[in-house]
Amino acid sequence: MATLETALTRLLGIQHPILLAPMGSAAGGKLAAAVTHAGGLGMLGSGYADEKAIRRELAEAGNARVGIGFILWALDGNPAALDVALDARPAAVMLSFGDPTPYTPRIRAAGCRIICQVQTLEQARQAASAGADVIIAQGRDAGGHSGMTRGTIGLVPAVVDAVGAIPVVAAGGIADGRGLAAALSLGAAGISMGTRFTATVESLWDRAMKERTVASGGDETAQTRVFDIVRGAAWPAIYPGRALRNAFFDRWHGREEALHGQREEVEPDYLASPATDFSQRVVWAGESVDLVRDIPTAREVIERTVEEAAAVLTRGAAMVRAGASPSG
Amino acid sequence: MATLETALTRLLGIQHPILLAPMGSAAGGKLAAAVTHAGGLGMLGSGYADEKAIRRELAEAGNARVGIGFILWALDGNPAALDVALDARPAAVMLSFGDPTPYTPRIRAAGCRIICQVQTLEQARQAASAGADVIIAQGRDAGGHSGMTRGTIGLVPAVVDAVGAIPVVAAGGIADGRGLAAALSLGAAGISMGTRFTATVESLWDRAMKERTVASGGDETAQTRVFDIVRGAAWPAIYPGRALRNAFFDRWHGREEALHGQREEVEPDYLASPATDFSQRVVWAGESVDLVRDIPTAREVIERTVEEAAAVLTRGAAMVRAGASPSG
Repeated sequence: MATLETALTRLLGIQHPILLAPMGSAAGGKLAAAVTHAGGLGMLGSGYADEKAIRRELAEAGNARVGIGFILWALDGNPAALDVALDARPAAVMLSFGDPTPYTPRIRAAGCRIICQVQTLEQARQAASAGADVIIAQGRDAGGHSGMTRGTIGLVPAVVDAVGAIPVVAAGGIADGRGLAAALSLGAAGISMGTRFTATVESLWDRAMKERTVASGGDETAQTRVFDIVRGAAWPAIYPGRALRNAFFDRWHGREEALHGQREEVEPDYLASPATDFSQRVVWAGESVDLVRDIPTAREVIERTVEEAAAVLTRGAAMVRAGASPSG
Repeated sequence: MATLETALTRLLGIQHPILLAPMGSAAGGKLAAAVTHAGGLGMLGSGYADEKAIRRELAEAGNARVGIGFILWALDGNPAALDVALDARPAAVMLSFGDPTPYTPRIRAAGCRIICQVQTLEQARQAASAGADVIIAQGRDAGGHSGMTRGTIGLVPAVVDAVGAIPVVAAGGIADGRGLAAALSLGAAGISMGTRFTATVESLWDRAMKERTVASGGDETAQTRVFDIVRGAAWPAIYPGRALRNAFFDRWHGREEALHGQREEVEPDYLASPATDFSQRVVWAGESVDLVRDIPTAREVIERTVEEAAAVLTRGAAMVRAGASPSG
C-alpha cells in the first residue's frame, strides 16, 4: 500500500503518520498494539496516573512498541506513575493538560521521546521551551477532553509557524484520509485520532457504545463538564469533554454548580443506570463522528486513512494549473 | 501565476476558488470589487438588510461583478431589500443565519446563483433541499458571527458527504494557502475568507483596527454576545460573534442578562469611547488572525494564497510513496 513519509514518521521510526490518542476509556493495550502493528504509533491511556492501569495495559500490549499518555494535572498528584511508565521503555511519553516542564528532563534522561499535546498557541511555545520532540496541536473539535479556546484548523498552522523544526501533529475533528491530507496541508507532520479508534474491533469500549458512536453525528456533540462532575473527576474547568448530548446533559449542562452541590444524590443514580443507557451515560465523541460509519479493525482504519490521503494529495496536485500569463 | 480549477471556479466563472465573506463592517464595494478584479468573487455585506447600504456599496463596486450577502433573520424583517439586490443582477446572493427556503425561488427566478452559508450539518441538508447552488460550511473558528456547534475541520467533510454534487466552500479559520489546500483536501471546492480581508488596503476598517488585527493572536479571540447586546443588534443567541477579548468583554461576558438590563446606561459610554479604544470597542477576528501579519492589497492576498496552496498541494503529492509490498 501507499505510505506517507513525514518528519514524524522519520523521528518516531514508524511507517504511517498516525498516532492513537491515549484515551483512558478506549485505548488499552490491545488497541495500542494493533495501531503499532499496523504501522502507526499506539498510545496507551494511563487513566489518572494509575500505576495499576499502566502495568495492566502494558501487559495487554505484549511486545508491541507503544507510547504512554499522561494527564499532567493527574500526574502532578502521583509523579511516581511516570517511573512505572519509563521502566517499560515506551516508544514515547505524551504529556497533556498542564505544564510539561517539570517532567521533560526525566523523560529525556530515560532516552524516551517527549510528545506534548497543547490546546493553545501559548502552550505550544511552552512545550517547545520544555524540550518537546513532537507537539500535538489539539483543537476543541476533538472528542473527550480538550481546551475551549482553539479549533484545529486555525491552531495547527499557527503552531507550525511558532515552534520551528519541531514536528507538529494535528488532533481534533480528523477521522479519515481527507483529514490526514488536510493536516499535512496545514503543515502538520501527522495526525492523532481518538474518536475514529473508539469504534474499532480492538477498542475497550463495549459493542453498544461503539454502535451508538456509529449512529451519531457531529451536530449532537458538545463540550461539557457535567460527566466529569458527576463522576468526581477533578478536571480543571478549562478542559471540558466533548460528548454526545443526552438527557443527563440536558438536565445539568449550565447548572454545574447545582450538580456539584447535589453530587451525593446524583452520582449513585448515574452509576446505577445501565452501562448502555445512553440517555444517562457519557459517550465521548468528537465532531469527526459523522465520518465514523463502521466498526473495522485498527489496521483497516489506518490503511484506508493512508490510502485515501494519498489519493487526495495526488488529486490535489492535479488541480494546479501552472499559468504563464499574468493574472487579469 | 498558478490557478486552481475546481467545481466552484467552473460554476461561478471565476479564476480562483476564493470568496470574500460579506462582512458588514469591512466588505464594502471597494473591497468586493478588488477581490473580483483579482480573480475571486467579491461579496458585499448588506448590513441588516439595509437598502441604502446595498445601493451605496454597489455604487462603490462600480462595474465589478460582485455578489451580495444577507443575514436571513434581518432579511425576514425587510424582505424588500432582496429586490434591491436582485435589481442589480449580482453574481450571486448569499443567505446565512436562518432558513433560506422562503427566498430561494425569487433568487432562482432572477437568474442569480444561490449561495447558502450553514453552521451545522442539519442546516446543510436544509440548504440543499432549498436549492442552493453552493453551500458554505462555516465553522465557529470564524471571525464575526457564526454558530457554536461545529468547527470547520469536522463540518466540511460531513457536509461534502451529505449534499451530493453541490460545491462546498470552507469558511472559518482559513487565512492562507495552507488553509486553502487543507479545504480542498477535505473535499471543499473553495474557501471564504473574512478576517484575512479585514486587514487589507481596500477594507472599510480604519487603519488602527487593521493594525490591532495584525498585532493580535488567535488565543485572544472568543465567541461572545456582549458586543451585539450593547449595540442593540438582535442576533439570535445561537449566533455569537468571535472577537478579540478586551476589558469590555471581561466586564460583561457571562453577565449577558445584566448587560441587557443596564443597556441604557452602558451603550452611551460604549459609543462615547474613542473608535480606536480597543479596550472597549469590538474588533471582530477569527482564529486565523495568527496568520494575518500585514496589510496588503486584496490582490496580494489572493495571489499569495493561491500560489502557496499550489505549492502545498504539489509538495503534498510528493510525500506519497506508492508501496508495492504488503504492509507489515
